[in-house]
Amino acid sequence: MVSLREIEEASNLISDIVKRTPLWYSRAFSSMAGRDVFLKMENLQRTGSFKVRGALNKILRMSSAERARGVVAASAGNHAQGVALAAAMVGVKATVVMPEAAPMSKIMATRGYGAEVVVHGHGYDEAYEKALDIRDRTAAAFVHPFDDPDIIAGQGTAGLEIAREVDGPFTLVCPVGGGGLISGLSLAVKESTPGAAVVGVQAEGACAFFSSRARGEIVTADRARTIADGIAVRTPGRLPFEITTAHVDDLVTVTDDQIAGAILFLLERGKVLAEGAGAAPAAAVMAGKVRPENGPLVLFISGGNMDVSVLSRIIERGLVKTGRLSNIAVLLDDRPGALAALLGKVAASGANVISVNHDRLKAGTPVGGAEVVLSLETRDSEHASGIMRMLRSDGYRIAPDPGAVISQENDPHCGIIPEEVRP
Amino acid sequence: MVSLREIEEASNLISDIVKRTPLWYSRAFSSMAGRDVFLKMENLQRTGSFKVRGALNKILRMSSAERARGVVAASAGNHAQGVALAAAMVGVKATVVMPEAAPMSKIMATRGYGAEVVVHGHGYDEAYEKALDIRDRTAAAFVHPFDDPDIIAGQGTAGLEIAREVDGPFTLVCPVGGGGLISGLSLAVKESTPGAAVVGVQAEGACAFFSSRARGEIVTADRARTIADGIAVRTPGRLPFEITTAHVDDLVTVTDDQIAGAILFLLERGKVLAEGAGAAPAAAVMAGKVRPENGPLVLFISGGNMDVSVLSRIIERGLVKTGRLSNIAVLLDDRPGALAALLGKVAASGANVISVNHDRLKAGTPVGGAEVVLSLETRDSEHASGIMRMLRSDGYRIAPDPGAVISQENDPHCGIIPEEVRP
Repeated sequence: MVSLREIEEASNLISDIVKRTPLWYSRAFSSMAGRDVFLKMENLQRTGSFKVRGALNKILRMSSAERARGVVAASAGNHAQGVALAAAMVGVKATVVMPEAAPMSKIMATRGYGAEVVVHGHGYDEAYEKALDIRDRTAAAFVHPFDDPDIIAGQGTAGLEIAREVDGPFTLVCPVGGGGLISGLSLAVKESTPGAAVVGVQAEGACAFFSSRARGEIVTADRARTIADGIAVRTPGRLPFEITTAHVDDLVTVTDDQIAGAILFLLERGKVLAEGAGAAPAAAVMAGKVRPENGPLVLFISGGNMDVSVLSRIIERGLVKTGRLSNIAVLLDDRPGALAALLGKVAASGANVISVNHDRLKAGTPVGGAEVVLSLETRDSEHASGIMRMLRSDGYRIAPDPGAVISQENDPHCGIIPEEVRP
Repeated sequence: MVSLREIEEASNLISDIVKRTPLWYSRAFSSMAGRDVFLKMENLQRTGSFKVRGALNKILRMSSAERARGVVAASAGNHAQGVALAAAMVGVKATVVMPEAAPMSKIMATRGYGAEVVVHGHGYDEAYEKALDIRDRTAAAFVHPFDDPDIIAGQGTAGLEIAREVDGPFTLVCPVGGGGLISGLSLAVKESTPGAAVVGVQAEGACAFFSSRARGEIVTADRARTIADGIAVRTPGRLPFEITTAHVDDLVTVTDDQIAGAILFLLERGKVLAEGAGAAPAAAVMAGKVRPENGPLVLFISGGNMDVSVLSRIIERGLVKTGRLSNIAVLLDDRPGALAALLGKVAASGANVISVNHDRLKAGTPVGGAEVVLSLETRDSEHASGIMRMLRSDGYRIAPDPGAVISQENDPHCGIIPEEVRP
């Protein structure tokens, strides 16, 4: 097991290399949540996430004989970069297996820190098998992303920093994938701050930890699909499961749409970039899912490594979801002036037209008709639906919403757990 | 004229409401620039930009009789929000005229701070005229965005904060529009730190200050068009022109593409959101345009109020410019298997296909042919052009780059000034 002592030792061990990240008071979140909110900015950590803490602690605790044989890890993202930097700082050879689906920017960053990157397999599971294979062949030490006491102690060092900076009890909200982070944080926080509460947040599409906790035993999900790729884990760690059962007050889930909304809020109001996992705590607070009322809220922004091309899609998703970007498909008679008349009505409603897509050939469009898809900048959902009502009452035929975002609100994966058995 | 004393007085006056923003050491920028780089994070200021400093100083220095008549201002963005918040904090009625082109988010934010917003005119000039009109009619005090000693002293307070935190001389790089900010900063910095240098950055598409300095007299540009809307000013302020002539070491320009690249770098590497003006200093450093070598660099990130829908376009622009997103149009025989074969070749080259647009109807496409536009995620420009070469040598007909970004590199507006007359 891991205790406060191991976390304090880890803190001393890694403090030369790991950054003590800032804890910000957030005016925007505080006024939204109705209580003081602080953000622990681990997205500003070296490599862009907290992962370097655990990896560095792990490698620094290896014997020189072990170090000489190098380390191997499997990861699609942050753990890869954390291991790569930690190994480079200690002078240990690192091999990181990354699945083909890993974003090019993360593969390049991992190589940039000096690791040998092996791209293998479609997903994490195959990359993981390959890494074990390399371990067996080379006798390199396998650096597990979460199910390891040294990793857990390393991640916990961020909890010590929070406990030192916040006066009195607080409620810490952090993302949960395999459970390494929340294990370290909850141990650090619970043992150093009496009255502190810890809430874990999972994505609905990857909620194996949530389901396991509800059933009282570890279960493997048949899939883990979420925009919060940093916490898309199918099986909770054994050690994390034990630790969190003892120390974590609540585990909640959020939808991908809620995460996208939180990324947008952090960006627009906080001016900071969080990746999906890093925004999950904010999403839980915004969705009113965080129940403990112990002191101020501390949201653990675990990382900021988001592919910017993904970000631009998330921005659009968030804009659509909050009604600030509305796509309206109108079936129009294909006669001169029809489009101009439609645009005139839309302009009068106060919406800005972003794009117009006029298609006479779309399947299902009657001859002599044309489908026009308008992308509109609107104030909010109310404004957007007001425009739809106005157009309908003027006789326009509106097609079903072409910009509908596939929501995971009704994802059956977490839904199977009846409310009454929830922890 | 304004002196250090007025700036120190302003600092005392506004310190309860204005945030002392953090000064960050940036590892990413330091290793890129080859010298220590700090970022002054005024994008984390209340209202998302430095503008509230000057507006608050101006309003706090008004007599109670003046305050009773309220204030009026014209702005498309940050000044509007700064005036609105400052007035609300002091309990003064504010009317802000914003042009129709102002983003909806900024209009709503300004209203959110309690100002009465009058939307009027196509651009800033018409909004400005309307504001003067309201001033004449209501006797409200007009709060100029830059050509006012109280505004300049207020903006200068950020310079005091920098001078207090950085040891010894440094080179401050800040954006320049009308010149209010750089006037205050250069006075504060030059008078409190011997050996400090100040460099101003303008956008090539809005470089009236640059041109005026080169000619030694104020000139009005016939247009001001740049993604850095916060510094799109056609006529430098009179007082700023005098102050900067005496105190600013150099004035340089950057292109919109360079600004987009800097926004992307700040976001991906720094995890922070800067608006166009706020990223201009970073763009100047990245382009190697900052010459003074006095101590570390301090980049003044003046604001972070960027419409996220604009951000998503800038992200794409930046990705295209750095070769990480490449659009390739291929003229294909419209026969079964042709597209599959093309995609096979592209996959083998190591690029990820983001989207495929297959169009048999495009004008100019021969019957029996189809134009396929591939959006590819590529490592860099070299990778992208390697793929083009490979496809050409395999007999594919490649159309001219459909994703070409209109560059302002050759913008005639600043280009007319011969190098030898540059300050």
